[in-house]
Amino acid sequence: MIAGTSGMLAEFLEEIVVPDPAFLEQARTRLDHLTKPPGSLGRLEDIAARFVAIRKGNPEWPLRKAAYVFAADHGIVAEGVSAYPKEVTRQMVLNFLEEGAAINVLARLHHAELTVVDVGVDADFGDLLGLLQRKVRLGTRNMLHEPAMTEDEMLGALQIGLELATGAQEKRQTLIAVGEMGIGNTTTASVITAVLTGQPPALVTGKGTGLEKRAYEHKIRIVDAVIKKHFRQKHFGKNAQPLEVLRCVGGLEIAAMVGLVLGATRYQIPVITDGFISTAAAALAYTIEPRVKEYLFAGHCSQEPGHRFLLEYLGLDPILMLEMRLGEGTGAVLAMPIIESALRLYTDMATFASAGVSGASV
Amino acid sequence: MIAGTSGMLAEFLEEIVVPDPAFLEQARTRLDHLTKPPGSLGRLEDIAARFVAIRKGNPEWPLRKAAYVFAADHGIVAEGVSAYPKEVTRQMVLNFLEEGAAINVLARLHHAELTVVDVGVDADFGDLLGLLQRKVRLGTRNMLHEPAMTEDEMLGALQIGLELATGAQEKRQTLIAVGEMGIGNTTTASVITAVLTGQPPALVTGKGTGLEKRAYEHKIRIVDAVIKKHFRQKHFGKNAQPLEVLRCVGGLEIAAMVGLVLGATRYQIPVITDGFISTAAAALAYTIEPRVKEYLFAGHCSQEPGHRFLLEYLGLDPILMLEMRLGEGTGAVLAMPIIESALRLYTDMATFASAGVSGASV
Repeated sequence: MIAGTSGMLAEFLEEIVVPDPAFLEQARTRLDHLTKPPGSLGRLEDIAARFVAIRKGNPEWPLRKAAYVFAADHGIVAEGVSAYPKEVTRQMVLNFLEEGAAINVLARLHHAELTVVDVGVDADFGDLLGLLQRKVRLGTRNMLHEPAMTEDEMLGALQIGLELATGAQEKRQTLIAVGEMGIGNTTTASVITAVLTGQPPALVTGKGTGLEKRAYEHKIRIVDAVIKKHFRQKHFGKNAQPLEVLRCVGGLEIAAMVGLVLGATRYQIPVITDGFISTAAAALAYTIEPRVKEYLFAGHCSQEPGHRFLLEYLGLDPILMLEMRLGEGTGAVLAMPIIESALRLYTDMATFASAGVSGASV
Repeated sequence: MIAGTSGMLAEFLEEIVVPDPAFLEQARTRLDHLTKPPGSLGRLEDIAARFVAIRKGNPEWPLRKAAYVFAADHGIVAEGVSAYPKEVTRQMVLNFLEEGAAINVLARLHHAELTVVDVGVDADFGDLLGLLQRKVRLGTRNMLHEPAMTEDEMLGALQIGLELATGAQEKRQTLIAVGEMGIGNTTTASVITAVLTGQPPALVTGKGTGLEKRAYEHKIRIVDAVIKKHFRQKHFGKNAQPLEVLRCVGGLEIAAMVGLVLGATRYQIPVITDGFISTAAAALAYTIEPRVKEYLFAGHCSQEPGHRFLLEYLGLDPILMLEMRLGEGTGAVLAMPIIESALRLYTDMATFASAGVSGASV
């Protein structure tokens, strides 16, 4: 058990197991008997086999798809690291509730149940229909000057994700996309990436939603300064302390996503990561508990340069490479029809024997 | 007009126009006003803009999706170039009609109307329900010794595709996937690729459905021998004569796909290419009429090494890269939910103005 974990987190971590490799073997055998040359469905075969193994040998139709979008503000925005004003976090939450954002369109098209969670937006939403209100505080503190969160705040945000995982299990959801909205959070994700992977700030910092050159250089300096303030070289890379990283830099939405990923892992529900920020959360969850990786699918690789370092760190190949950089869970939900296709092929294709098709002769 | 074209082909070619660039401009302007940082949907924005421009400014809901799978046999199979016996072409056509193949599963899941066309399978299907019988002959001749088709046979097969395009227009189909089934046809596609791109046989020849090393080396030698028999160096690359290439090497299904691609272009219906063989057909169509390219979307890039040379030749980026190598139109239909997502985002997202979201400040 990692020091500083709450009772609830400790309980979840204790229950995490790896998928039974016998189910993986069984899935691969079935795939080899389907009416196609062995391996000719490429990565769809790996996706199907991994998913089926996670779900103990049965894809369970219909697939119950869900997307969770966590919103929060970041104190570091005061340092001028974003092309958009902080108010956009609040405005986009309203846009989510009015069904006008990209994630709404994609979740509707691909039949994913969308849950929007306020974990720490710096605004009072009052009684807003459709918003899951779980605000821990009005945004994180400015990590350039102090830790973004107290330990209690961090564990509180993390617990929100754990509880949502329990809810997902109760609703029998079988495929979860994790997304976020938080002006400034690529800066936070860059710090997390630098500490976890040991890469320098310049390589893991990107232009976010569209910074110009000077603002981009400023952002790299801020990332560098934050790292120097909170972390020592000896705690980089494989010696990184994930909960300490999370407490010092935030964000509240990242903590909640760490909780959801750990929770889904506990319940053996496959999770699709989205862009740079949700993958930073998944990487922290993996650093806390390496078995997490067995339950992750990387929806896509974004244009943020740090994302590919995180995917390498996790050992995951992205399903899509479409140069997206929007967040909100869009890349994760867009990968759902690919995953569903893989599972449908697994379930519904004829076998060589049943269809009377000859096998390879050479 | 290209010498040797039939009256019907000539008529189609005369009607081909490029999409009006004003519609492309209009689509890009709309995309920049949606509630997301400009360009943050990456290639989805290009897909949406191109599609909308092709369809004269309107994506037209519902999208009417269709997949056409052309089956034919190849005389070159006598040379031992395939891991599977020729009978598998016939068996797989039966599997398509019994809904057991990969393309059936994907077309059903993604709501694409599937049409299976026999252009030249070396078998008598009798009265088979659900099969579009357009057999030109019982497979092509062996291109190692003689031209695969006569000019009449080639134009007959090509005309089948043109007629199907007219049918697609009458059914108001708005998105067409092109696929094929034909044991031995990666050998044919390798010859086409070598002649069109000027690449050597060893680089454009792959293991097809799964050849071992010795059989693979033999296949490269056959590709080389076929090229030497029919083509002179001066007719390689940009001097290639597409209809002559098609007549000499086949296949009947490739000729029909050339016709469908040219026909869809004439009716301004977007076409998704699938793997190596359907892309070889698209590359021939493009060589006949360069404006074809404006109507093409590359569904994926397959594991066949020649495929990427064809995509470069066409100047197309594949939507998916999932290491598939099955054909049947599977990679093309799998790209449909991505294209539909791009169009739904284009149509349904809120604008900054309508949602009251602030724009970029830096």
